[in-house]
Amino acid sequence: MLVGTGISGERGISLAGLEALRACDKIYAERYTNLVPEGTLARLGALCGKKIALLSREQVEGEKELLEAAKSESVALVVAGDPMIATTHVSLLLSAKRRGVQTEVIHASSVLSAAIGESGLQAYKFGKMVTLAYWRDNYRPMSAYDVISDNLARGLHTLLLLDIDEKLGPMKPSAAADVLLKMEHEGKKKLFTPQTKLVLLKGMGWGEPTKKYCALSELAACDAKEGPAVVIMPAKLHFLEEEFLASL
Amino acid sequence: MLVGTGISGERGISLAGLEALRACDKIYAERYTNLVPEGTLARLGALCGKKIALLSREQVEGEKELLEAAKSESVALVVAGDPMIATTHVSLLLSAKRRGVQTEVIHASSVLSAAIGESGLQAYKFGKMVTLAYWRDNYRPMSAYDVISDNLARGLHTLLLLDIDEKLGPMKPSAAADVLLKMEHEGKKKLFTPQTKLVLLKGMGWGEPTKKYCALSELAACDAKEGPAVVIMPAKLHFLEEEFLASL
Repeated sequence: MLVGTGISGERGISLAGLEALRACDKIYAERYTNLVPEGTLARLGALCGKKIALLSREQVEGEKELLEAAKSESVALVVAGDPMIATTHVSLLLSAKRRGVQTEVIHASSVLSAAIGESGLQAYKFGKMVTLAYWRDNYRPMSAYDVISDNLARGLHTLLLLDIDEKLGPMKPSAAADVLLKMEHEGKKKLFTPQTKLVLLKGMGWGEPTKKYCALSELAACDAKEGPAVVIMPAKLHFLEEEFLASL
Repeated sequence: MLVGTGISGERGISLAGLEALRACDKIYAERYTNLVPEGTLARLGALCGKKIALLSREQVEGEKELLEAAKSESVALVVAGDPMIATTHVSLLLSAKRRGVQTEVIHASSVLSAAIGESGLQAYKFGKMVTLAYWRDNYRPMSAYDVISDNLARGLHTLLLLDIDEKLGPMKPSAAADVLLKMEHEGKKKLFTPQTKLVLLKGMGWGEPTKKYCALSELAACDAKEGPAVVIMPAKLHFLEEEFLASL
């Protein structure tokens, strides 16, 4: 069973999710597909009256530990956000199904719908979303640029999830701005300049969320704020969308 | 304040949402932007120790009652799903901001991310979503067909929300199939036939959800199942997506 805790640490879990965890034999957790506020798992464990075992990325992706345990007991994997948005969880559920294990997903708030909601932008105007990946010396993926280009041509907003790298950590807003401008330099489609305004949402559902509608060049000012960040590259705005963004 | 209860009736609310409702002076609710299981509001009221006043569509969209109350008290509007996906909630929050009322949104699970998760399809392969509207004698919107066409051309899945009409009620799976086939007859792009396979999710997060990967012509068999329905028109599938759909 996959149980989402949503975007607000342990307080983002649903009543159904909490009930399910309390009824479970064993609770595992991972925290590499999403960032969670410090102390979340300890507090969640206290709420469930159980110890939660933290698994490494290798243990989750290796699947062995979880699938072995699920043979004889009811097992839950706690996931921040809404589970199944990361491919890892889909693979895991599929492996469990192949072994005849009964599976269930308990949903919770997701950065996908929360980002749409916090921005006030129309849900129907979002195109394909994409992860903005780090650029390295020998690997400079342009996929995010292509997606933004394609979406903009259709009048659609783009939700950009920021890369979480094991070594480099979660991508900072300044690094996101840097990659976007390098992409423009490479792609030359005049999609944006340092003055292009976009939406930054950081720490949604956390104590003090940061919501900004600002120029690309101003993103760096948000580096020090807490929590996971997403960026929305807006297409042409409806006047109500414009008013909402101005009120952030 | 807008408080989401997610997709699972009162058990879909987060701990943060429940706390906020308990601390509130007045709780209102609407249930026309989303369907909720019978008795949800009464049970939620009992959990909060407060009576929840149900507002009509006119009262929510008129905004007066809510904004008047919010002048002198802390007021919450309970919304099924994740708030702000419906334009009504964005307008309401904007009106509150214009009047200097402090606003907050407490997120919960949404049909958007839950449908992606339940289908096992890759989140990055979804294009623009769209509502499949009822066809009437004098109004036969083709927008859903155009969106599906555009998404398919880009290799992207389409999430179709089914219309909820005040008089006709929520669109049944058979009616959805009917409208889709009429659109094909009109649009002639050969996007689908009665044999085209698609995903139907009904009553996600409810007691007995229905998940089907079946032909358009078989949708009618799901009419009697309980709960709100969404349809996903898949693009070309990755073999893991195919396997997951086959396991539904």
